[in-house]
Amino acid sequence: MTSATKVPDLYPSRVDPAPAIRERVDPVVYGDHDGPLNADQKAEFEKQGFLQVPDVLSGEEVDALLSELAEFTGRTEVKDDHRTVVEPASNEVRSLFEIHRTNRVLARLIADPRIAGVARQLLGSDVYVHQSRVNFKPAFKGKEFSWHSDFETWHTEDGMPRMRALSISVSLTYNYTFNGPLMLIPGSHKRYVTCVGETPEDNFLSSLKAQEIGTPDPDSLVTLLTEAGGKIAECTGGPGGITIFDCNAMHGSNSNISPVPRSNVFVVYNSVENALVEPFAAPSRRPEFIAARDFTPVE
Amino acid sequence: MTSATKVPDLYPSRVDPAPAIRERVDPVVYGDHDGPLNADQKAEFEKQGFLQVPDVLSGEEVDALLSELAEFTGRTEVKDDHRTVVEPASNEVRSLFEIHRTNRVLARLIADPRIAGVARQLLGSDVYVHQSRVNFKPAFKGKEFSWHSDFETWHTEDGMPRMRALSISVSLTYNYTFNGPLMLIPGSHKRYVTCVGETPEDNFLSSLKAQEIGTPDPDSLVTLLTEAGGKIAECTGGPGGITIFDCNAMHGSNSNISPVPRSNVFVVYNSVENALVEPFAAPSRRPEFIAARDFTPVE
Repeated sequence: MTSATKVPDLYPSRVDPAPAIRERVDPVVYGDHDGPLNADQKAEFEKQGFLQVPDVLSGEEVDALLSELAEFTGRTEVKDDHRTVVEPASNEVRSLFEIHRTNRVLARLIADPRIAGVARQLLGSDVYVHQSRVNFKPAFKGKEFSWHSDFETWHTEDGMPRMRALSISVSLTYNYTFNGPLMLIPGSHKRYVTCVGETPEDNFLSSLKAQEIGTPDPDSLVTLLTEAGGKIAECTGGPGGITIFDCNAMHGSNSNISPVPRSNVFVVYNSVENALVEPFAAPSRRPEFIAARDFTPVE
Repeated sequence: MTSATKVPDLYPSRVDPAPAIRERVDPVVYGDHDGPLNADQKAEFEKQGFLQVPDVLSGEEVDALLSELAEFTGRTEVKDDHRTVVEPASNEVRSLFEIHRTNRVLARLIADPRIAGVARQLLGSDVYVHQSRVNFKPAFKGKEFSWHSDFETWHTEDGMPRMRALSISVSLTYNYTFNGPLMLIPGSHKRYVTCVGETPEDNFLSSLKAQEIGTPDPDSLVTLLTEAGGKIAECTGGPGGITIFDCNAMHGSNSNISPVPRSNVFVVYNSVENALVEPFAAPSRRPEFIAARDFTPVE
């Protein structure tokens, strides 16, 4: 029995010849639960689609993570691993995927109640890790990443049925406006921009470096920006802070020509009640190091 | 008689096999002259190497310039002109060079005492236009431009003897931190970072799109940034404002993936007492639409 017969496609994309802006049919915050966030923080996340919380980790904790990562990325087997993504042209490490399975120190961080607890609180259930990675945006030559909604890809390519997932980015370095920080369009998470174009086989091999399919059209972006009053949010702040953003928040980042590199740990938590089915608009599943199918709750 | 026998090379670059950071031997502000800037503004320019002045042009004046440019860039002969630079890949107009000669409305702006008067005041003499252009940084796909000192190029490739020139950028649109604004390293204008590599023939054909030769090394940039207390200045502000920056200020810009385009008029004023000689480190002169040899003062 395929997912098509069981789970309705509430967010069709990559099927129609023209893009459209649809309404989100799912809540942003699932119920009213206790956890690390207070009521104001929950309300802000619901309204804006993202929330920054400074100083979640101490300086010592960040230093320990940086040391661990320096050692880890220096290993030949890690550099050669298929879960390691290198920067086009420069061959420098840009991302380490499935870090919750390959590194015990990072696995502990990802299960930390200060972080995973936020996901449980907002999604109103147990959560599992849909994807984890460490991102290194190098100084001088960090490349831009164009606007996208993660959910559009997770739905079409991974078979994630509903909007009941979120990302948490843990900063390991300083994020300034000038070193290519995460940018978001506030409120965009309540709209769903459908994309045009059919997903090619093995799309993930190129889309992790520079996304082409699953990219919203310029007119829709201008509409979202206009609805946001022309404001683009830039997630700046120090190491140890976290940024929580909804699975459907429109986001991207500019290049980093500055001498200041940017690194973060990035975790996608999905509700265990929203486990993946078959892709809604792709010829086959993406690999599990990008889209996990082990739905065991984070403890 | 070549320039080599007449004018000493006080700022050698592209000759040694290793980069170096040298001291500037020229003043930044030449004498104490009256003009559009007050004493505090002059002092800030001297110290930081740049200065922003908001609302120099009125909204009506900016609108008139934008209308003029829309009409002008729409002409086939302008798009096909060798002084028009297009964005690599997208074929959109990125720059119009020598605009003070090709367009009367822009010529009037460039001679406006509110703008040219600043150059005369700071450089302590009459000035002529070394280079003029309009820059269009498109929304969504504006590319980054890596760090460089303009003077390094004007000296080696154009034969500009001394640091007695400055650029004035007139904003025609809003400059935000997120749409690829001009970035500068404060105080960097008092250092001279020599570059490595020999200037190839016709270097300008590629360097206007993405500079490679004449690019400072990463270590020197980190040193300049450290001397600046880790601060990078981002020139944000509304249309009609101007940014004045010294010929030797280290600057660059990130990409613009945002839906907000950026346009400005950019003029390089050089002192008539600092007229060009032969290039100090290049096989031949650059074309006059990039490096003028008509030293007639701006009236």
